[in-house]
Amino acid sequence: MRASDITEKKLIELVSRSFGKGDGIVIGAREDDCAVIDTGEGCIVLTTDMLHRTTDFPEMMTAHQIGWMSVAVSLSDIASMGARPIAILVSIGLPDDTELDFVEELGEGMNACASKYDVSIVGGDIDSHDELTLCGSAIGTAAKERIVRRGGAGEGELLCVTGSLGGAAAGLKIALGEASASDSVREILLKSLFEPEPRVLEGLALAGYATSMIDISDSLAISLHELADASGVGFQVVKEQIPISDGVKSTFKDPLELSIYGGGDFELLFTIKRGDVTSVKDKVPFSVIGEVTSSGIHLMGSDQEIEFRGYRHF
Amino acid sequence: MRASDITEKKLIELVSRSFGKGDGIVIGAREDDCAVIDTGEGCIVLTTDMLHRTTDFPEMMTAHQIGWMSVAVSLSDIASMGARPIAILVSIGLPDDTELDFVEELGEGMNACASKYDVSIVGGDIDSHDELTLCGSAIGTAAKERIVRRGGAGEGELLCVTGSLGGAAAGLKIALGEASASDSVREILLKSLFEPEPRVLEGLALAGYATSMIDISDSLAISLHELADASGVGFQVVKEQIPISDGVKSTFKDPLELSIYGGGDFELLFTIKRGDVTSVKDKVPFSVIGEVTSSGIHLMGSDQEIEFRGYRHF
Repeated sequence: MRASDITEKKLIELVSRSFGKGDGIVIGAREDDCAVIDTGEGCIVLTTDMLHRTTDFPEMMTAHQIGWMSVAVSLSDIASMGARPIAILVSIGLPDDTELDFVEELGEGMNACASKYDVSIVGGDIDSHDELTLCGSAIGTAAKERIVRRGGAGEGELLCVTGSLGGAAAGLKIALGEASASDSVREILLKSLFEPEPRVLEGLALAGYATSMIDISDSLAISLHELADASGVGFQVVKEQIPISDGVKSTFKDPLELSIYGGGDFELLFTIKRGDVTSVKDKVPFSVIGEVTSSGIHLMGSDQEIEFRGYRHF
Repeated sequence: MRASDITEKKLIELVSRSFGKGDGIVIGAREDDCAVIDTGEGCIVLTTDMLHRTTDFPEMMTAHQIGWMSVAVSLSDIASMGARPIAILVSIGLPDDTELDFVEELGEGMNACASKYDVSIVGGDIDSHDELTLCGSAIGTAAKERIVRRGGAGEGELLCVTGSLGGAAAGLKIALGEASASDSVREILLKSLFEPEPRVLEGLALAGYATSMIDISDSLAISLHELADASGVGFQVVKEQIPISDGVKSTFKDPLELSIYGGGDFELLFTIKRGDVTSVKDKVPFSVIGEVTSSGIHLMGSDQEIEFRGYRHF
């Protein structure tokens, strides 16, 4: 049996089978979007993501956008824990024939995203590699009682999401030449795909309210399954309440498919108690898209279960 | 101009030209072996290293040894700051045709190194990639006043190193078939190369005494230059006092060349005040190999300057 014969989840189980969990490790490997360590004076939140040219950066992405993305993915993970990101390290595997302008622009893109969210790029590593490979590792801090996990959703609570969905997936169709749109729509959708905004401020504002939370960059569908599994619950999603991006609704035939299964949107999916809706609305714009049930992930008004699929590497 | 036309140092300068240094960042990008963040209740120490199959793992390395190495390199960086490593994340780019036994053994090797030094592997990322690529990011903690930097060596102080040198470089010659040795020597040298021990306990014991410190895995020569540059000093190294590994002395014609320029030894190079020798000797075995001068890096007894060379990626 080889790596390509099994799922990413099973590969992670296999590689981490021997890992233990030392003192002070609140959340360890395989457990959530980030690891959490209790230092005694608050918690440190950690995450890492490796991205590759062929699988993660479509041809038309600029160096600036690639740099931006390499930081944004990790900040989005920190945001999904309700933590404040403070610093990031980026390791770079760089092809020998990379133009120096590209290298400088890559750094500027990283820094544009980091500094927008008050995060410092504090180090990294650089060496020669066949394919451009970027590995970002971010650190954040949070008070222990404000950490939001995947596993806290309770039956009867409301299911919510920040922002609007489908923009990144629609942008990918345009980038791959599988769809076309007006210049203005095209520009908005490509920006959703190539320069996603991690929901750092939203994540911080939701800490203290959200009972569970996850970043939906893999796809809404996959994130619903992950949240349901971790919390031991199900979800009822109301089709009409899913906030679909404007350009997607007006231009594409399958906006719901793109929004649920497309992936690439850096939004936060979370649950809150019904009584907290007004308080949270004052702090963060979001949409209620359904509710927490006892089991199953149903799409109301379609008689369908939402499948576990989206953007996957393996 | 392309990446391969300039040095790694210049590439790092280029990519990080735009990076700022936010509040609380004690040591940022380009400044030392690790980044250091002051949280107000102590310091967090961070480092990341990316390793690739073709450039970092000779063919005969086992999956267990590759896993071990991917953790050891980062723990060695944390040790060189005098900090206590507590957790590590490892991202893995995995070729599709990797056997599952290899994947499991890789994880066991990572965990063997981490758990030996009381470090938890708290997360990572895994995806498909042409070449096996591992990116480890470690975090440690230290009281601010115990952080040891590269830049603290003072003229007249003693120059010291832990352990013995040349073993990894000699092992590499054996691994590449460029040299041979008796079975017992061969085993010891290959172990130095493939399963280096990060000097975690030594680093902790030296905090409070060492006035400057660096990990010498790039080579003793390169580390001498880095320490001299950061501290604004020079070094006088006494050839006869360099502790050369036993198997190297007995089997190789050029033990001094291997020890100074070979690289791959995970030892700590540091400076201490003359009056502290006895106190430090009680805690950590080490060799005094010379002294801090005002400028230049001289090898006494050979009329030579020690050049800036060793194991470099670019």
